[in-house]
Amino acid sequence: MSKNISIQVIRRLPRYHRFLKELEAQGVERISSTKLASIMNATASQVRQDLNNFGGFGQQGYGYSVSGLKDEIDKILGLDKKHHAILLGAGNLGRAVATHMNFESLGFQLDAVFEKDEKIIGTMLRGLKICPDSKIESYCKEHYIDTAFLSLPKKSVSAIIEKLYNAGIRYYWNFSHFDIAKKYPDTIVENVHMSDSLMTLCYRINENKNI
Amino acid sequence: MSKNISIQVIRRLPRYHRFLKELEAQGVERISSTKLASIMNATASQVRQDLNNFGGFGQQGYGYSVSGLKDEIDKILGLDKKHHAILLGAGNLGRAVATHMNFESLGFQLDAVFEKDEKIIGTMLRGLKICPDSKIESYCKEHYIDTAFLSLPKKSVSAIIEKLYNAGIRYYWNFSHFDIAKKYPDTIVENVHMSDSLMTLCYRINENKNI
Repeated sequence: MSKNISIQVIRRLPRYHRFLKELEAQGVERISSTKLASIMNATASQVRQDLNNFGGFGQQGYGYSVSGLKDEIDKILGLDKKHHAILLGAGNLGRAVATHMNFESLGFQLDAVFEKDEKIIGTMLRGLKICPDSKIESYCKEHYIDTAFLSLPKKSVSAIIEKLYNAGIRYYWNFSHFDIAKKYPDTIVENVHMSDSLMTLCYRINENKNI
Repeated sequence: MSKNISIQVIRRLPRYHRFLKELEAQGVERISSTKLASIMNATASQVRQDLNNFGGFGQQGYGYSVSGLKDEIDKILGLDKKHHAILLGAGNLGRAVATHMNFESLGFQLDAVFEKDEKIIGTMLRGLKICPDSKIESYCKEHYIDTAFLSLPKKSVSAIIEKLYNAGIRYYWNFSHFDIAKKYPDTIVENVHMSDSLMTLCYRINENKNI
């Protein structure tokens, strides 16, 4: 399904999804492309074009069904799936991620948390008892885990990535600067590079332009 | 300087910067476009094309000077500037951001941290005593602050954004889902939307494709 969709459109889908979910929570049933465009900060024609990529769910003059459109985007993004994930690193960043993210509505289930700091091991996070790093391999052998969330520094990821790969983990949500996809081209990696984002802000301030 | 550079190139610059900094730290003095391309996971021709946007610093047969190129990218990104920033929200995410980010090398200086949770107010973070939210306006009046880092939920940003804007803050590094640029089009906002990133991972797993 939905082959050959441009990166740009794909990157916008989570935003559509987020706004549609909010509209649904507010009890809004239908929305016009003009209204949706205004929420998205886009033009109505761009919205129609974006959504046409997936088969055009709108009806001329009636707009889009909010929950219908949300459900379709759910399916396109695969959010109805449940990937099994472990979190590595229960420092501030790991705790922030585990506390704030609604994994279940994003296609993932967090099954276990691992950490090397002995002061943190054994404490609870999101209802899970934090396990020592040394247990990762045995845990992955006993449970079906396909995804790892890495809130660790580059050096720690470098030290542990082979274990994770050998345990069969191919999907990574990576906060470190370690280039996983370069080492293992058959993995799927989504990086969150905060410092790149801050540098981009600096550039835009410097150039005073919106990109 | 450097007008009309595509978004794609700009978004790659922080990565160049990051790798060049690492090479510099390793004592590497010169690098060929082929080698740089391999580190960047790109083609040599793309690297040359990217860097030509900024006036082509390479010498045929000699490659690029690592520190020279890094310094040029520093200047293009404006990292040699010092923007004055406050951090709002000293929960797990705020602490992670304050602890791990090397703001000074990214063009910013963190001057103060604000929080509404009374248990956190008065404690230290990155050498700064955490102040109560109620002090933001008077602080900004007394100090020249142009940037706010927002590690707060959408609702809290919605409640405080007018104060920040009225205090003259126009640059935002925003972890919330509040659409600042929509409310204030004359601001420059860089968003870090973790849930969008995780949804994108889910999509890519679902489609098993790299975007």
